[in-house]
Amino acid sequence: MTRVEIPDRSPFGLHNLPYGVFSVGGGAPRVGVRAGDTVVDLSVVLTGSDGDEAFAASSLNAFMAQGPDRWAAVRQRVHDALTADVPHEAVHPVSAVRLHLPIEVADYVDFYASEHHASNLGRLFRPDAEPLLPNWRHLPVGYHGRAGTVVVSGTDIVRPCGQRKAPDEDAPTFGPSRRLDIEAELGFVVGIGSEPGSRIAVDDVAAHVFGAVLVNDWSARDIQAWEYVPLGPHLGKSFATSISAWVVPLAALESARVPLPGQSPEPLEYLRGRDDHGLDVDILVEWNGEEVSRPPYREMYWSPGQMLAHMTVNGATARTGDLFASGTVSGPERAQRGAFIELTWGGREPLTVKGVERTFLLDGDEVALTASAPGPDGTRIGFGEVVGTVRAAR
Amino acid sequence: MTRVEIPDRSPFGLHNLPYGVFSVGGGAPRVGVRAGDTVVDLSVVLTGSDGDEAFAASSLNAFMAQGPDRWAAVRQRVHDALTADVPHEAVHPVSAVRLHLPIEVADYVDFYASEHHASNLGRLFRPDAEPLLPNWRHLPVGYHGRAGTVVVSGTDIVRPCGQRKAPDEDAPTFGPSRRLDIEAELGFVVGIGSEPGSRIAVDDVAAHVFGAVLVNDWSARDIQAWEYVPLGPHLGKSFATSISAWVVPLAALESARVPLPGQSPEPLEYLRGRDDHGLDVDILVEWNGEEVSRPPYREMYWSPGQMLAHMTVNGATARTGDLFASGTVSGPERAQRGAFIELTWGGREPLTVKGVERTFLLDGDEVALTASAPGPDGTRIGFGEVVGTVRAAR
Repeated sequence: MTRVEIPDRSPFGLHNLPYGVFSVGGGAPRVGVRAGDTVVDLSVVLTGSDGDEAFAASSLNAFMAQGPDRWAAVRQRVHDALTADVPHEAVHPVSAVRLHLPIEVADYVDFYASEHHASNLGRLFRPDAEPLLPNWRHLPVGYHGRAGTVVVSGTDIVRPCGQRKAPDEDAPTFGPSRRLDIEAELGFVVGIGSEPGSRIAVDDVAAHVFGAVLVNDWSARDIQAWEYVPLGPHLGKSFATSISAWVVPLAALESARVPLPGQSPEPLEYLRGRDDHGLDVDILVEWNGEEVSRPPYREMYWSPGQMLAHMTVNGATARTGDLFASGTVSGPERAQRGAFIELTWGGREPLTVKGVERTFLLDGDEVALTASAPGPDGTRIGFGEVVGTVRAAR
Repeated sequence: MTRVEIPDRSPFGLHNLPYGVFSVGGGAPRVGVRAGDTVVDLSVVLTGSDGDEAFAASSLNAFMAQGPDRWAAVRQRVHDALTADVPHEAVHPVSAVRLHLPIEVADYVDFYASEHHASNLGRLFRPDAEPLLPNWRHLPVGYHGRAGTVVVSGTDIVRPCGQRKAPDEDAPTFGPSRRLDIEAELGFVVGIGSEPGSRIAVDDVAAHVFGAVLVNDWSARDIQAWEYVPLGPHLGKSFATSISAWVVPLAALESARVPLPGQSPEPLEYLRGRDDHGLDVDILVEWNGEEVSRPPYREMYWSPGQMLAHMTVNGATARTGDLFASGTVSGPERAQRGAFIELTWGGREPLTVKGVERTFLLDGDEVALTASAPGPDGTRIGFGEVVGTVRAAR
């Protein structure tokens, strides 16, 4: 038996306890919890209770489907286990394990919930019109992305090819994207779904959402700009979406609850909750190791509860494994913008990264997102990183 | 042992042999083939070869993942079995079985491949602009739909609620959709997917696509019109998409191959195949039992091979169970339009159905789609019906 050492002030302390899926050597993937710089194997530590077989699985889906009472009970058992001794074979340095995609993604919906991002993109994509479209303040605008290309942090990103047409060109050409970008987002993972024809209330988000991940929604702006009317983004986004290997339980984010910045006009009744709130999560964007932005999630206009309520208000079912993401997190300041197209204003105002003027991503570039939120007693709650390196188009 | 009787001129003759998933009484779902008005249980008839365990499954996915050589071999074995005697317990009248959703849908992409439909919708949604947007003739425009709400024919459709705002209203209101519509489409089911960063060539469609289904992409036009800029349709579509219980193998559609109607300008190289073709499938739309339209699939501008090539040209993976649909099938004539918004020109030119003037769907309405295509030797290849009844909003 051994005691798991958690460094003081670790963002992966006992108040966090995010879940992931890992393997060691060629072994089978199983569910683990991150504590400090350690991964604790739940298929070893938690056994003997109904449902514990879900920890010997290659995704969190079986555990997520067990529902909020079970999530709370397991969280308490993990806490208890980590404040006592655990079997030696259950403990692995995080550097010694392989981290897998933690969830089997059912449907993936990406929202557009930052007013600053939507306004910036409106100015860039439709320079002659009002930046915010008439529906934007009435509903959380969103669309379905490709679930099959959600990948775990660390997966290389092959530069996508596709059709691009600049405004001054007569016809589109085919080739590798020349405006490859990121979108720094938070994502929310559904544990308990809903029945056909029913809907989820804004205030019921914690009965359905298991936890949160950090997301990089890689975006090929030239492909997107040409294809996106009238049915929305498709190939410009569908090549890859990276998520963190660790899913932070919603229970770990209670100290991060903050009021929304304010909504005007007042939204329709189905989008109003008595207990609705935003989240005070600070994101850090690093480009080849250099900080380029700090997007503040607390600035988001629409709440996670509103997104979930909207997504199901037409009676569409939610399912275990559904992932809904916030859209790019951008704050009011330039250095708070979560996409390079905004940071460089469409490529016209380059950033200096490692001493070089930069606009969009080049082959070999690495982007790393990290994030943290306030926990109880002055602690911080860390999200797993989302790292990706751009590889040349094939 | 018994011989399966197939009526002369049945659209489900030996040249068709579509696959589905069925159960009898409270028994487990398994894979069957339709022959005439009979369902033949493949988990009983085909045993003893590697891979035959895939027929004792609740979806076609395991069989579809076995690839085109196996699809061809099984098709031959089914043909041989049905021209000899089969075990009595393998044979069920189609009226005595429950038909299930035949595939586990991975990602669902809906295209917009009919020039007539796209032009009509452009005129209706954007009356002051060119009906076809600049990108439409250069690429098959499409978007991701909700995989989790793809349902099998016969499933009731609960009228969706959502935000609607008519052009003459100041603000949106919430309530049941007042413009509930259909979209008659064909869908294509992927058996063999592709690797990240690779792409599928137009001419390789038969190495990847297992078969075709008939699709009704139910659409709430009032919700759609308000929400769809700039990220495309979402709640206006995501409540339900119905597909036929039977998947027609691509091999059964060889006699239905026809040249495309013609593409101008010539598409970019990745969209050009040497063996590319359309399909001569006749769809019939019945509203409460009365014929209202006969959409001709042979009029579609973009081919299934072009849709699949486009969907993967950015390196996005395809997966077993992916469903991509054509978008509404509309021909040049009014009586060939595959959506009520086109048939009634936005509700301004009602249809007479059962003696009553009608525009959009009312609670209790039933819509049935059927389809057939030329088979060899003057036969017809039938698609399973897609039927749905509208139920009142909850």
